[in-house]
Amino acid sequence: MPQEMPASKIGLSAIILAAGEGKRLSGTSGVPKPLRRLLGLTLLERAVLSCKAAGVTQVYVAVGFKKEEIRAHLKDLQQKHQISIEAIDNSHWPEGNGTSVLACAGHTNSPFLVLMADHLIDPEAISQLIRRDQDKDSCYLLVDYRIDQVFDRNDATRVKVDNKHITDIGKHLKLYNAIDTGVFLCQPFLFQALNEARLEGDGTLAGGTGRLAKLGKMKAIDIKDRFWLDIDTPQALQYGRSQLLKRARKNEEDGYVAKLLNRRVSIGISKLILENPTTASINPTTISIISFLIILIGSALFLLRGSVASIVAGVLIQFGSILDGTDGELARLTFRTSPFGAWLDTLLDRYGDMAVAIGVTLRFWMKHPTGWIVLGGMGALAGFLLASYTKKEFTLRYGKGVPNSAWTNLVKRDLRLFAVFIGAIAGFPYFALLFVGLLSHIGIARLVYGVRKSTRAS
Amino acid sequence: MPQEMPASKIGLSAIILAAGEGKRLSGTSGVPKPLRRLLGLTLLERAVLSCKAAGVTQVYVAVGFKKEEIRAHLKDLQQKHQISIEAIDNSHWPEGNGTSVLACAGHTNSPFLVLMADHLIDPEAISQLIRRDQDKDSCYLLVDYRIDQVFDRNDATRVKVDNKHITDIGKHLKLYNAIDTGVFLCQPFLFQALNEARLEGDGTLAGGTGRLAKLGKMKAIDIKDRFWLDIDTPQALQYGRSQLLKRARKNEEDGYVAKLLNRRVSIGISKLILENPTTASINPTTISIISFLIILIGSALFLLRGSVASIVAGVLIQFGSILDGTDGELARLTFRTSPFGAWLDTLLDRYGDMAVAIGVTLRFWMKHPTGWIVLGGMGALAGFLLASYTKKEFTLRYGKGVPNSAWTNLVKRDLRLFAVFIGAIAGFPYFALLFVGLLSHIGIARLVYGVRKSTRAS
Repeated sequence: MPQEMPASKIGLSAIILAAGEGKRLSGTSGVPKPLRRLLGLTLLERAVLSCKAAGVTQVYVAVGFKKEEIRAHLKDLQQKHQISIEAIDNSHWPEGNGTSVLACAGHTNSPFLVLMADHLIDPEAISQLIRRDQDKDSCYLLVDYRIDQVFDRNDATRVKVDNKHITDIGKHLKLYNAIDTGVFLCQPFLFQALNEARLEGDGTLAGGTGRLAKLGKMKAIDIKDRFWLDIDTPQALQYGRSQLLKRARKNEEDGYVAKLLNRRVSIGISKLILENPTTASINPTTISIISFLIILIGSALFLLRGSVASIVAGVLIQFGSILDGTDGELARLTFRTSPFGAWLDTLLDRYGDMAVAIGVTLRFWMKHPTGWIVLGGMGALAGFLLASYTKKEFTLRYGKGVPNSAWTNLVKRDLRLFAVFIGAIAGFPYFALLFVGLLSHIGIARLVYGVRKSTRAS
Repeated sequence: MPQEMPASKIGLSAIILAAGEGKRLSGTSGVPKPLRRLLGLTLLERAVLSCKAAGVTQVYVAVGFKKEEIRAHLKDLQQKHQISIEAIDNSHWPEGNGTSVLACAGHTNSPFLVLMADHLIDPEAISQLIRRDQDKDSCYLLVDYRIDQVFDRNDATRVKVDNKHITDIGKHLKLYNAIDTGVFLCQPFLFQALNEARLEGDGTLAGGTGRLAKLGKMKAIDIKDRFWLDIDTPQALQYGRSQLLKRARKNEEDGYVAKLLNRRVSIGISKLILENPTTASINPTTISIISFLIILIGSALFLLRGSVASIVAGVLIQFGSILDGTDGELARLTFRTSPFGAWLDTLLDRYGDMAVAIGVTLRFWMKHPTGWIVLGGMGALAGFLLASYTKKEFTLRYGKGVPNSAWTNLVKRDLRLFAVFIGAIAGFPYFALLFVGLLSHIGIARLVYGVRKSTRAS
């Protein structure tokens, strides 16, 4: 994340290699590989945005094959994403991808990143690479030791790592213990190594880095469990799509209903939105607002008499709850997460909770106008809002999330709205509301009790 | 604060000088100066707790005059505050306070703090002293450049500082630009300097530090606007009391009503509690709970018919609101702030808000049982809870408090409960509730609008 970057890294530049032909993927479609779309963004756009998210402020893109198309796209990207991008011509691209790095030699100052336009890479992995204390006499390569899990392993560039030093690198190594992820942090002496390799007839980047490896100047950094993928084939593109969607689900914070039901639908909606060119650029905050409005309408429907209104209200509320997952998914899938978006989304969630509690309470009160009904409705409303409030306050005071337990899952919004949905269909939304309201207060009390106990113990 | 301490400071020790007679303060009362009480804690206890709050884990206290009394007190302190304290005998105390530091020579390892038992010092000032990068060839002294504002200036130890180096130190300097606050960060070579000074007939700490100053080994660190006070006289004790009370008010977060009314009363209550031996050790959290219960009773009284019940309810709620300031004041005045205490206090505040909204709404609803009344009450309740929620969420997302404006002051709890109090006395608590509920929602909307605007602009 950009805000975690040390100040000294501001101003880092990156070279993205986008000059090759990429036959196996682009061959049939006519679209050059870097311009292939994946969930609303081109592969090249994803590489640029990964760099930007890791704190890179200047990107050089080496272009060759179908360079005019790619140049035009880069111009769009620069405007759309407010990052400085320069296209660098590499007419020698058929000689190998090392010539693309060489073409940028006059532009970058040390150190600089090198990435592939056809690789997906988690920005956190790039951050990890540039955060590390740089030894100015070495180039660094992010490597993946999970050899068995690498997609299309047979086509990957192999790396032999000995005590963090890369001793050999190449497509055809027999002995190797890691895979090249295609993300480098380099020093300018790489250019000389590339030149030497090229003079000996090897124009590839691996030719240059292999030379540095022999000199003891290439080091490996473990990407650990962060995501990367080399997209060479339609199968890889398909696999990349499913992986990005899986990672956008943000499972660790989801409650039971979110995991089992809501996410399965919301991620499908996200996919539909991103793969349709007319909807791909919808702002995630727009989805937050639509989700809120749907819940608002559902809540208002409770005021109409009859069981049909109640059922429709319940369905709308559950649909709004599902759609509430889509905004975050869209933001994560397209590098559009923002503090404002996250903040507004949470506020709208709470206002939605308020609307539901009011709608359900007034419906039941119209039939049974007693003070107890009002008391129960207000208590449930407070329970909903305070369940969230308690957790947020805890994080503020303790600098960490609340300890996980079955109870923390029982006071989450997904369950709350699902209970109202079921209650509305079954004809007793008010009692469902009371039930989850009560659960919320019990959950808060248990949390306070548990924290007090562990505070005393320490 | 301890949690801000870098790990390297863990294990720091402090020497507290408590061997002297302190005639001007203790002369008449018979109580040795370090054992004089100020707002519930002895001066020595305040010095120990300031050290603890700054991350000190081992305290050595040099004792001499009335040492058995002080030893017994230290034993209590060690148990009560869970910090390792060792009393060190200094039979040479009449020769000067330097002999007390010398008596501890065999115990401390480098670096160590030196403090006076009769000085009040803000723990943040100590943290500032130990956080700074230590140059192992120097001792550091916290100095105060606000010479004109130093209490009992004529009796203070004077310091001449030249470009952060202390060039001279002593009670009778003619030329000086700062005052010695009595808080040092020292290296073991101080012991040698103290020995040399003593051999020449000067047993004071200033004798030793003056020597180091001449050798260029004493550096000054500006205490800036942090609080410290040398307590030599009953007047100084009185001044210290008023300063501690003033600083416990925590003005910057207070709303209008808190500033103008609530704090004036709550700080008086805090003073009464701390100066009465039977109440001095009341836990701040107990006060949070009492404040909550008073508001709960007030809210319940709204359900009784008649205007007297309403007036008493309003008064109780306003009193609870005032008392809600006392818990934090007590905690700050006696070094008992804790994440759990702050967290629970905030939760009880919200539950109190809930009770008030429910009580006021039900009262009015009993007279006018319409759906609109229920809607208004629930809306106001949500406004109260969400005004706080919105601010907390903002802080979580942006890592800072909400931008200050007149509106942020209008959605604070002090004003909210004061409005209900006035409404209850005037006979229209429900409309007061609606009014502040509405204010809360407008405040939230304005905040969202303002943040969105500034996000767009940047």
